[in-house]
Amino acid sequence: MLGRMAAIDSVFGKILRGEIPCHRIYEDAHVLAFLDVHPIARGHTLVIPKEPAATLDALSDDAAAAIGRVLPRIARAVLAATGARAFNVLQNNGADAHQVVMHVHFHVIPKHADGSGLGIGWLSAPLVDGPALAAAIAGKL
Amino acid sequence: MLGRMAAIDSVFGKILRGEIPCHRIYEDAHVLAFLDVHPIARGHTLVIPKEPAATLDALSDDAAAAIGRVLPRIARAVLAATGARAFNVLQNNGADAHQVVMHVHFHVIPKHADGSGLGIGWLSAPLVDGPALAAAIAGKL
Repeated sequence: MLGRMAAIDSVFGKILRGEIPCHRIYEDAHVLAFLDVHPIARGHTLVIPKEPAATLDALSDDAAAAIGRVLPRIARAVLAATGARAFNVLQNNGADAHQVVMHVHFHVIPKHADGSGLGIGWLSAPLVDGPALAAAIAGKL
Repeated sequence: MLGRMAAIDSVFGKILRGEIPCHRIYEDAHVLAFLDVHPIARGHTLVIPKEPAATLDALSDDAAAAIGRVLPRIARAVLAATGARAFNVLQNNGADAHQVVMHVHFHVIPKHADGSGLGIGWLSAPLVDGPALAAAIAGKL
């Protein structure tokens, strides 16, 4: 399980320790937000916990709550500063799910009128075993 | 700004009021989680606030914190029940950003060995105006 993966030191750890700089947007006791230096849209922002967890399933409830709490405020500021009217929040866990830096991070990505922003591949099918699957997941809570 | 968009009643409002059923996984005073009925991967789960906000920028800090707090626990259960080892969390705001149901929702999407899960389109470029842009966004907080 990902949750058992040890946190690996990363470029975000170095940013948190002040060893390398960042374009800081927001900071509190639990959270740091700064610009992605390889943005996919103007205003592309990263929101990370100070707690050194590699993936979200390994993050403490309190640290996850602290990130959730500031996401609306950061999103409003990104929209206001860039003029975007739509945005995505994306959080990847595991190399197979497009995670590159092994420290939890939420991407806040404006979707601009020029089409820049997150591309989404979405191949859905009807749910076939809802009751059994819901019970299986709930049974693991 | 999206934050000024009025919350629109939706299928999730009907689920929250018990007018239509769902495959429930988790519920507390602020949050409901249930299976997406059009999953893009086995175990694709939706986590929504009971507060009726259309987009994340319009959600209260407390409701956003409540969702953040339960995301690690729900993710662990989805992984444990499905056997996935990677996953994405995606939250869309605005029709241009792939939002269909106008009630805040976080997708928890396992990435399976068969390749099912979220497809991500990522066209990045180096950040060119970091200091000015970070200051502009921080100035809107």
